[in-house]
Amino acid sequence: MKILLTALVSSLFAISALAADAAPAAPATVKAADTNVVKASATKKLTVNKEVPGYWRVTLNNPPINLIDDSMYDDLYDLVGEMEADPELKVVTFESANPDFFIAHYSTAEPRSRFGIPPWIKTARRLAASKVLSIAVIRGRVRGGGSEFAMALDLRFASRERAVFGQPEVGTGLIPGGGALQRLPLLVGRARALEIVLGAQDYDADTAERYGWINRAIPDAQLDAHVAEFVKRVLSFDQRVLAISKETINAVGLPVEAELQQTQDTFFQTFGWDGFKQRIPKLMQRGIGKAGEFELNLGKHVGELK
Amino acid sequence: MKILLTALVSSLFAISALAADAAPAAPATVKAADTNVVKASATKKLTVNKEVPGYWRVTLNNPPINLIDDSMYDDLYDLVGEMEADPELKVVTFESANPDFFIAHYSTAEPRSRFGIPPWIKTARRLAASKVLSIAVIRGRVRGGGSEFAMALDLRFASRERAVFGQPEVGTGLIPGGGALQRLPLLVGRARALEIVLGAQDYDADTAERYGWINRAIPDAQLDAHVAEFVKRVLSFDQRVLAISKETINAVGLPVEAELQQTQDTFFQTFGWDGFKQRIPKLMQRGIGKAGEFELNLGKHVGELK
Amino acid sequence: MKILLTALVSSLFAISALAADAAPAAPATVKAADTNVVKASATKKLTVNKEVPGYWRVTLNNPPINLIDDSMYDDLYDLVGEMEADPELKVVTFESANPDFFIAHYSTAEPRSRFGIPPWIKTARRLAASKVLSIAVIRGRVRGGGSEFAMALDLRFASRERAVFGQPEVGTGLIPGGGALQRLPLLVGRARALEIVLGAQDYDADTAERYGWINRAIPDAQLDAHVAEFVKRVLSFDQRVLAISKETINAVGLPVEAELQQTQDTFFQTFGWDGFKQRIPKLMQRGIGKAGEFELNLGKHVGELK
Repeated sequence: MKILLTALVSSLFAISALAADAAPAAPATVKAADTNVVKASATKKLTVNKEVPGYWRVTLNNPPINLIDDSMYDDLYDLVGEMEADPELKVVTFESANPDFFIAHYSTAEPRSRFGIPPWIKTARRLAASKVLSIAVIRGRVRGGGSEFAMALDLRFASRERAVFGQPEVGTGLIPGGGALQRLPLLVGRARALEIVLGAQDYDADTAERYGWINRAIPDAQLDAHVAEFVKRVLSFDQRVLAISKETINAVGLPVEAELQQTQDTFFQTFGWDGFKQRIPKLMQRGIGKAGEFELNLGKHVGELK
Repeated sequence: MKILLTALVSSLFAISALAADAAPAAPATVKAADTNVVKASATKKLTVNKEVPGYWRVTLNNPPINLIDDSMYDDLYDLVGEMEADPELKVVTFESANPDFFIAHYSTAEPRSRFGIPPWIKTARRLAASKVLSIAVIRGRVRGGGSEFAMALDLRFASRERAVFGQPEVGTGLIPGGGALQRLPLLVGRARALEIVLGAQDYDADTAERYGWINRAIPDAQLDAHVAEFVKRVLSFDQRVLAISKETINAVGLPVEAELQQTQDTFFQTFGWDGFKQRIPKLMQRGIGKAGEFELNLGKHVGELK
Repeated sequence: MKILLTALVSSLFAISALAADAAPAAPATVKAADTNVVKASATKKLTVNKEVPGYWRVTLNNPPINLIDDSMYDDLYDLVGEMEADPELKVVTFESANPDFFIAHYSTAEPRSRFGIPPWIKTARRLAASKVLSIAVIRGRVRGGGSEFAMALDLRFASRERAVFGQPEVGTGLIPGGGALQRLPLLVGRARALEIVLGAQDYDADTAERYGWINRAIPDAQLDAHVAEFVKRVLSFDQRVLAISKETINAVGLPVEAELQQTQDTFFQTFGWDGFKQRIPKLMQRGIGKAGEFELNLGKHVGELK
């Protein structure tokens, strides 16, 4: 049974047995990579449209349900390096090629990160510190690590009708490991963060806006025009002034990296806890990580596993 | 006059002359009690339904208007001790037996706390730190110390039509002494906290939700089902994962205990200030602490005392 | 060209060449003035109605579009000194004589501040620390330094139909220099502050309320009655209790003065940066600082300068 479970888990959803048991990946590797700017303009999972000067329009595409896996984290890490290396860049937007999923959630599908543990904490810190303004344009489900990715961007505009938000981790026996436990309280306050994380339910875009999870819910038919207009404005502004404004605002509302690190360490440990071990066979059986009704309504379903 | 005033005050609304003049109750007593777990499953003012494993459903009942008095504070203190002693407990909800009042406000009616000063600050801190998720299910008025009790719980769901929120203390010549001056700014920000406290007016549930005072205003007909579904979900989740998630989120949004203590000390002093002494006879005459129109519309009425 | 630019700028919108190049005004002068209580009851730009005991009703009037210039900042500084010297004062409201503009934005029109640099940071800090509750009653546009003035007051009530909010500075090549980079994140969070400042667009009152920029958007026909009722209530309350409540709430949500100072210093430098130099001729040509369509829709227009 244990071998079967490990096989199931490592193939699709959870951290491999190796990573779960071992310490986080070799620091030496990560450090070396931190200064390494890699060209990632057109990887398989991130497509970057650079037609408009000063603006990169990134499309996330990892069929069938846009899981965020290690290779997408690596691509994001590389992308941030590229962003930092481009002196003309002002704005980056992130949208999804899949209308039903902005990002479904984290997956440990192979191949694993070339850093061992995906350098997400570092990527997120550098996105926030960057002079470049980053914007999530959200349609479809954005849950778990996907929600954590969106929260690490500077702005979040979402389709009122089509965006669905959730931190379903607790429902699967895990904890949110990529920043939700730190970023949600800063965005929505302690009470609503507790509700979202311990309830593990889905939220519509209007509620997400009222809670402060996103900047704004916008009617789907107007979302693209709203973002295009916003981006056009920012592109027309002076970069030095944009940069110092963002840098100054950054004094408020960003999490402490050591706390993110500690939570991520615990997250990887939760793959070995009983709660997850009991739930993963049911999750696999019902369709976690696959296209289908289970993932479309994941928030509801994680409340019915037991 | 002074004797009459003291008699009136001590009988119903205010701290006794002894407590008002004296220093806070003997620390030795409080310290001893802090480690003392008392069975409080079915006191007069708190009824605890434990039918569902892992879930305590507490009903507040102190007729005629659910005043929170010293004995209810003592019961809450004992209840928290019980909560901490039950390794299986995941969720506690608090609702009221009185559809018009969740909790009216603080009362100094006899008997006084067996600790001298009710150990509310400690109770509130332990509720927040507890692995157990605590939820206020609010119908009717919740003002003053009642609002402070609700704010010390983790989540607040309220009836859109029936819940009414207020911190009327300033209107009576007192200050909010049980945490509103610390918790409101953390929930609703400084500007709205100033509005609520210095205006001393009533707020409906929709406004309370927009301000962040509560998690959510829910149509009255759906409130019980919403809470039942939320509780059912949490009960189905793994306790260890619930606990570490709450513990991590607790890094943000909790008040500093020393500031709560200092404000509570000042609160007890305000019973002796001119503002309260001038208003208490009018408050008594008009019906403070009694069933009736004055308490139903207390927010409005405290603005018309002078 | 440089001379022409300087002339244009110093006459209407921007800091004079002297001030831009020089260090902030002589500290000795500012220090002396800090303890100097000046009577400002009826200056040209601030009219103070003191008919109701305990209440000052201030009207801002600087035709044609209520620019906040150095002399208005000096008047506000003097007013705060007066407020501090009046032991009976409980509430001050600020409204505009111009239904289209609460305050348009900052202007460097002559005469310059008698302190060199207007003592706005000090004025704002003393407004917050004052025992007196200060309230903005907002109709019309309130942008830039005007929005920063409103944010430095304790409460903000705004006309749902007529109030318009903006921080257009970045669109003009400047940064917000009077507190928006510090106060907005505290009020609306980092993400929405970035959206507001880097987007430089106008916001209606409902959005401003949802974001937390203001306390509440109130239907225009009810705004005055709402404020009158609120003020009447506060006036009826005990001053000592009001004061200690405000003082206690002040522990949360106020900016750090050193950060305000640093940002103001940078703000004055941005008048000399290329972004502003490139935009100021277009701004002048299109009608910045003058009555007309450009100022009415400034948020939109600063996105179309390039």
